[in-house]
Amino acid sequence: MTYCVGLYLQEGLVFLSDTRTNAGVDNISVFSKMQTEEVPGERVLVMLSAGNLAITQAVWNLLQEGVCLGGEKLTLRTVPSMFRAAQLVGQAVREVYQQDGPTLSQQGIGFDCSLLLGGQIAGEPPRLFLVYAAGNFIEATTDTPFLQIGEHKYGKPILDRVVSFGTPLVDGVKLVLISMDSTLRSNLTVGLPIDLLVCRADTLEVTVRRRITEDDPYFRSIHDGWSNALREAYLELPRPEWGLG
Amino acid sequence: MTYCVGLYLQEGLVFLSDTRTNAGVDNISVFSKMQTEEVPGERVLVMLSAGNLAITQAVWNLLQEGVCLGGEKLTLRTVPSMFRAAQLVGQAVREVYQQDGPTLSQQGIGFDCSLLLGGQIAGEPPRLFLVYAAGNFIEATTDTPFLQIGEHKYGKPILDRVVSFGTPLVDGVKLVLISMDSTLRSNLTVGLPIDLLVCRADTLEVTVRRRITEDDPYFRSIHDGWSNALREAYLELPRPEWGLG
Repeated sequence: MTYCVGLYLQEGLVFLSDTRTNAGVDNISVFSKMQTEEVPGERVLVMLSAGNLAITQAVWNLLQEGVCLGGEKLTLRTVPSMFRAAQLVGQAVREVYQQDGPTLSQQGIGFDCSLLLGGQIAGEPPRLFLVYAAGNFIEATTDTPFLQIGEHKYGKPILDRVVSFGTPLVDGVKLVLISMDSTLRSNLTVGLPIDLLVCRADTLEVTVRRRITEDDPYFRSIHDGWSNALREAYLELPRPEWGLG
Repeated sequence: MTYCVGLYLQEGLVFLSDTRTNAGVDNISVFSKMQTEEVPGERVLVMLSAGNLAITQAVWNLLQEGVCLGGEKLTLRTVPSMFRAAQLVGQAVREVYQQDGPTLSQQGIGFDCSLLLGGQIAGEPPRLFLVYAAGNFIEATTDTPFLQIGEHKYGKPILDRVVSFGTPLVDGVKLVLISMDSTLRSNLTVGLPIDLLVCRADTLEVTVRRRITEDDPYFRSIHDGWSNALREAYLELPRPEWGLG
């Protein structure tokens, strides 16, 4: 399993992914699920992946080699816009599906693949997309400024309640770490270390990239601080007057 | 879908269930998923149900008529202990499985049924069980003092972080309402009104039973108060010193 989340904020984009892959509970490994293409000053693109690792690695490999889109062979370094980049990723997913899908299906294995693609190309604002296994995609908007893939449920309530398009980048980082911490706690197949990446809007480069391990002092302060904060917060809520003392 | 949760606390038991059933997203109804048997001063038992409504209603009907256990026909009003009560519920589930399982299976429908059974019978402490579709069951302990059925993920992080066996009943009520509120917000197939029931240990009766609708002023204070508290809590967490301002 996997948990990846992307925030689409006025100040820029925030990405966070875990690194655990598993084939059963007795075979777990560490693989980064975050890939980047950066041409400083011109473009920065980030792809997060969930699903079957063989599929998502094949997608990334195809994207490196180049994928045909509208009769032209393009990569994430050459696509002219983020919309075309999302189409390119979708096309790569479809090529893998054509290649591997029939055999996977014969062996009763689903074509499990979902991707977050975000970034900015000079001349455009930052954009964030979720590409499905069918190669189609949706885009985050100011109404719904976050997208998640993988084991998204445990970490969703905090995002639902707090994240807005106007949330500052620095608070967005806190919120994705809280969201990940809730997920790590409840689902063993999502595991540390985690990869954080922030792109401030219009800088057209990676602002912060950080691999966060168990020993990271800031992550520990979020982990402990959030548990304490929740404990205090619920104690301060009013008590029901239903004869319970 | 459904969300039901039970807390096993030193001071007693807390139960909360939603009331939404759905066949597709365009056919939703209100059904209570909470059933009780109460002989004040002698026993109080509560059953919460998730899964296929035809199955869980059949289980409850069998339990009312009596189910054979060890050669004797028993009901929840006559079983001698909570362990036997859990066995009886499991046996009722198996009888429904024998009756309906083959046809459901032929029509490609899973035998979807899970139940929380909690309560107290004179001479014993309160106990809380989760009965599976196979009729087997587990019991809450001081290490893991809560059990959930149905759509459990959204509402689990707050319970994971805060609930302990020593949590007072009145705080337990707050916590299950917060847990339900997170679930209501994220999954449309879990819906208001919700049914709350509290049994204080050794009273052998229902202490509080309350149907909570959208207009319930206490539930509204939890709903609004919790969102505000989370917003304040995350703002007070330390900021990362990673050059994000």
